[in-house]
Amino acid sequence: MKIGAGRHVPSFRVMDVVIRANALAAAQPPGAPGVLRLEVGQPGTGLPAGAKAAVVAALNSNDTLGYTEALGRPSLKRSIAAHIQDWYGVDVSPARIAVTFGASGAFPLAYLAAFDPGDEIALAAPYYPPYVNIAVALGLKPVVVPCGIETGFQPTIAMLEALPRKPEGLILASPANPTGSMLAPEALAELARYCHANGIRLISDEIYHGLTYGKPQASAAQFSESAIVINSFSKYFSMTGWRIGWMVLPEELVQVVERLAANFFVSPPYISQVAAEAALDCCEELEANRRNYAIARKVMTEGLSAAGFTVFSPPDGAFYIYVDLQGRGEDSADFCARLLEDHKIATTPGYDFDPVRGGRYMRMSYCAKLADIEAAMDRLYRLR
Amino acid sequence: MKIGAGRHVPSFRVMDVVIRANALAAAQPPGAPGVLRLEVGQPGTGLPAGAKAAVVAALNSNDTLGYTEALGRPSLKRSIAAHIQDWYGVDVSPARIAVTFGASGAFPLAYLAAFDPGDEIALAAPYYPPYVNIAVALGLKPVVVPCGIETGFQPTIAMLEALPRKPEGLILASPANPTGSMLAPEALAELARYCHANGIRLISDEIYHGLTYGKPQASAAQFSESAIVINSFSKYFSMTGWRIGWMVLPEELVQVVERLAANFFVSPPYISQVAAEAALDCCEELEANRRNYAIARKVMTEGLSAAGFTVFSPPDGAFYIYVDLQGRGEDSADFCARLLEDHKIATTPGYDFDPVRGGRYMRMSYCAKLADIEAAMDRLYRLR
Repeated sequence: MKIGAGRHVPSFRVMDVVIRANALAAAQPPGAPGVLRLEVGQPGTGLPAGAKAAVVAALNSNDTLGYTEALGRPSLKRSIAAHIQDWYGVDVSPARIAVTFGASGAFPLAYLAAFDPGDEIALAAPYYPPYVNIAVALGLKPVVVPCGIETGFQPTIAMLEALPRKPEGLILASPANPTGSMLAPEALAELARYCHANGIRLISDEIYHGLTYGKPQASAAQFSESAIVINSFSKYFSMTGWRIGWMVLPEELVQVVERLAANFFVSPPYISQVAAEAALDCCEELEANRRNYAIARKVMTEGLSAAGFTVFSPPDGAFYIYVDLQGRGEDSADFCARLLEDHKIATTPGYDFDPVRGGRYMRMSYCAKLADIEAAMDRLYRLR
Repeated sequence: MKIGAGRHVPSFRVMDVVIRANALAAAQPPGAPGVLRLEVGQPGTGLPAGAKAAVVAALNSNDTLGYTEALGRPSLKRSIAAHIQDWYGVDVSPARIAVTFGASGAFPLAYLAAFDPGDEIALAAPYYPPYVNIAVALGLKPVVVPCGIETGFQPTIAMLEALPRKPEGLILASPANPTGSMLAPEALAELARYCHANGIRLISDEIYHGLTYGKPQASAAQFSESAIVINSFSKYFSMTGWRIGWMVLPEELVQVVERLAANFFVSPPYISQVAAEAALDCCEELEANRRNYAIARKVMTEGLSAAGFTVFSPPDGAFYIYVDLQGRGEDSADFCARLLEDHKIATTPGYDFDPVRGGRYMRMSYCAKLADIEAAMDRLYRLR
């Protein structure tokens, strides 16, 4: 029997790395050096303590913890609006907040609410692969704009103006995966206003907000009422497995997204909403996590440079470094495989993020344990 | 700025009922008779005790409860396969199980894995509205087959043969929402074999399995290796708000679904997977719940008949009765509004489930508290 349109969705190379790294780890004799896992974006920290306490309290209440409103519990929406006011100084009505199944669950809703099949969505390469794969599955046309280190792998208005036709949408990610680069607030403001003025629906992926190390962060919600902002409790709030995120929606899309969400998801998970609401108050623990990332970032940045990997965009945020392997004369797939097989360091070749130019790049994540990052940098240094 | 394809997704009338019932309930003076909520499919029971204990244990472990495999934790997939063996006596490899974000999250994956835009998906009316709304959002063409009480609102091979062209897919639901009707095992077997022989991809929605009251239940997994079976922990396992379900996939679709799931969802919620695995062992509590549904079903069936509502398909399973209002000379929208405003009984007019013929039908759910169902039947009796 036939297979449907989903057959066009490619697999992630990182999954092959994960499977191979698991197998190598299982095969290592006791006492042998471990496999160092720098290939994934899974924080080593878990649910903040205050959120855990809220989950236990909810479990012990008489509540059935059943379906909630399709766009989330009103109290959580109010708390997210207060968080936005706190972080960005901008008033967003809770009625414009949609709680979603992670940032992942937000993308199909945003795409279907904003675009029609055949619409073109511009985005920079390198990119987080589901941006493109979900769009293709829904009949949209991703228009990939190759970006380089000179713009921090971020798109510019000039690049958008140079496209053969005006796209219906633009995706921005700041801090970005895989590069960790950030748009300066004024650059984000200009892009947001350009999109608004030109009828281009901006989707601003702000999932790594909070994980910044000195550079100022801004939200598209500050600059545009037509932008869709996507965010999540996965990264800064250390809740990946709880699958809970949110959108800030333009007013004209709220009802459409509500109907789509009711059909596609019924509602976000109740217990994750309870955890999320409490996590917003766990500032001390989360800031401590962030300080640990900052240390890990320094260790990796300096370690890479010492080992001769000197070309990468400043990792302003998130927990990734996207290393340019140019001049090594080796494709990243081969290089990353060699790092894993011979030196037990798991990394991601760039192909997942840029099918065209990915052979030149490797992504390393510094959300692993600090000792593992130090060991990895030590092994790399000995490779010089 | 423009609104996208999602604008075509209609709202559910039941949501208007919920909102109005909430407002009426809030406005009732203390001591006045309550608003009786028979409009939704939210069990009054919560997470089984054994599942709750497993959640607490997981929270207190050192696990970060992060992302899992895209198709779910291997231990949960093995437990689901064992459950399928236990209930249906059929061996399904855990490799064919996909754990999903509820049954809801399974539908887009199933549609995209099995169909191409423009493909026709047959299904009986009345139906659960997201079957159609998700299909339309993904560019598929639902082909609605109007079914009546004479076939228990279920489609037959003759009806499929009478279609202008052979559809690419068929959705079956047994027990069905909103009718509670079931296909006899031999009828399901015949339909499954017919679909397999004719290259029609069968999607069998088995979300209400377990909630049956005497009639035998069968799974499409027993009769067809090309069928996609969709199920959930929401109903029998009383875990709606945990948003966790599963699919049994044909082997040729496993890899496609895995890639789609990784892109669309990353992974199902970790904690819900822990709860689900434990819930599979909570037989005693869940069977007690089912006995309570059986009592509520008897009260509602007899109460409706005594009040003169005698025409409905035997409610073999789930927790709904789909009442034929024919002969009352009143559209269901008006009748349900009158029941709510004047008698404080919330029900769902049939339009959500059958836009064409819904004016003749009303859905009542018996998953509410028994006392509420008794009170509702009493009020209806006094309306004769």
